[in-house]
Parts: sequence; structure tokens; C-alpha cells
Amino acid sequence: MKRFLTIAAVLLFLSGILWANSATKSSKGTDALLRADSDFAAATAEKGLEGFGSFLADDAATLRPNKPVISGKESVIAAWTPLLNNHTLSITWKPMTAAISSSGDLGFTVGSYEITKTEEKGKQVVATGKYVTIWRKQHDGSWKVVFDTGVTDLTAEAPKSN
Amino acid sequence: MKRFLTIAAVLLFLSGILWANSATKSSKGTDALLRADSDFAAATAEKGLEGFGSFLADDAATLRPNKPVISGKESVIAAWTPLLNNHTLSITWKPMTAAISSSGDLGFTVGSYEITKTEEKGKQVVATGKYVTIWRKQHDGSWKVVFDTGVTDLTAEAPKSN
Repeated sequence: MKRFLTIAAVLLFLSGILWANSATKSSKGTDALLRADSDFAAATAEKGLEGFGSFLADDAATLRPNKPVISGKESVIAAWTPLLNNHTLSITWKPMTAAISSSGDLGFTVGSYEITKTEEKGKQVVATGKYVTIWRKQHDGSWKVVFDTGVTDLTAEAPKSN
Repeated sequence: MKRFLTIAAVLLFLSGILWANSATKSSKGTDALLRADSDFAAATAEKGLEGFGSFLADDAATLRPNKPVISGKESVIAAWTPLLNNHTLSITWKPMTAAISSSGDLGFTVGSYEITKTEEKGKQVVATGKYVTIWRKQHDGSWKVVFDTGVTDLTAEAPKSN
């Protein structure tokens, strides 16, 4: 009986360590995802289409109205070109939450974005929305986007004068 | 040298088995996700809101325009109630592709949907769109939705007369 209790105590102790490890790993994983998404936004703000494309996996995909699913890095870049190559428009986004698989190689971030249009005489109109981005860890350890889509707010225009 | 070649041949053979296993597992995983999504659509068509809710994880979330991220099973059900409890509307969807984590516990499906509105005198108007649904495997082995959002086609109305 004493031996049984000893074994039970050791097992309980070991499962405690395993639980603590998996909890730590999970939190570390979502932190890495939130950081990747913030870096994605910063690279896009700084380098435009080039920075944006550097975060896409080869099999990245996205959705646009009235079109089949847009699949493949180059096709996703093409879909974003009208926005990112238009000097009157700028986009910023910020992840709010993240979730990750137990293997730590697939996860997603959810956040909000703002697209600012600078009109004539410097007047700015801001369109807002929310998005989900799905990430896959690459062989080199970096996180790349495999899927991305968003929902635009319908009437959220906040005209500002400069 | 002969021994080295034998070891190399054995390693090559073993890595082949491992590769085949992982490919099989991955395909099995995405098949299960596609099946879960088809079952989700069938349950919603048959049982409405109750069938829909039975596929949601407790921490399910979705996006709607002009609202913060909608989080929690009950809140997602509330967001879908106007559509699923309206007897003039019906929704069907069909997954096209799926991807899964190496641990097989997180994945997503991408597909297309149709919302049919039956107007007076039986005239039907169909709105179409595409969606992404993110799934997490539960402790009981079932797949539940943790995130879901879609993009509606803007002008795809196909009026049909009965």
C-alpha cells in the first residue's frame, strides 16, 4: 500500500510538471503569434507590398466578394496591390487575441484594422473592421500567414480635418 | 562500407514509412474536418438553431460589422438567431478545402454558402458568399467550431420563380 501511494504521489507530481509545461508552452505560443501579427502590420506599414508579401506562406489564401477563393502567395499579393500601392490609402491593424494548436505549428489571431484614406486638401476618412489571420509555423521557425479575411464595418466613417 | 550502405538503406526505408504515415494521418485529419463541416451544415438545415449550436465550442467566436468580436457560444448563437429563426430564410454551405495542425487538434475549413430568401408568392432570392471556419478537437474526440466568419458576394442575386 505504501509503495502504491509513493507511485501515485510521483505520478501526480509528474502530471503537475507536464500540465505546467503545456500551459507555459501554450502561452508562449500565443505570445509568438501576437508578436508575428504585430510584426506583419509593422512590415506592411514600413515596406508596403514587399513587407506584406514577406509574411505570406506559399499556400496563403484569402476571400474577396464575387470571386473564387484566392489561393497562392502571388494571387494574395495581387488582391492586396490596389490597396497597398495606392498612396492615398494606408492600413494598420492590431491583434487582440490568439489561439494555437497543441503542437504549436498552427494558430490564429483576431484583431481590428483601420484603413485611412487621405482625400483632397488632406481630409482623412477612416474605415474600420475586424479580421482573422491563420498562421502556420515554417521549417525555419518563422510564422507565415496561410489564411486571412476580414469584416468591414458598414458605416464607421470618421472624417477628420487636418 | 557495406555496413554503412545497409544502415543507410534501412534509414531510407524507415523514413519512407514515417513519411507515408504522416501523409496518411494528415489526409485523415482534413477528411475528418471536411466531414465535420458537412455534418455542421446538415445539422443546421435539419434542426436550425439547435443543430447549429451543437457544433459550437464554449469559446466560439465570430465577427459582425460594427460590433466588437462576438465571443462565447451563447453570443454566437444570438448573432445567428435572426437568420436561423426566420422561416423565410434558409442557409446551406459546403466546405471546399481543409488544413490541420500536425497534432491534429486545430484546423480550418474554407467553403461557400448560399442564403435563400423566399419572398411573397414563393419568389426566391439567393445570396452567396464564402467562409472560413476554425475547428478544435474536443476531449471526447468531436470537432467543434472555435471561430467562424464569411465574406458575402455583393451583387450575386439570382431571382428564381417557383
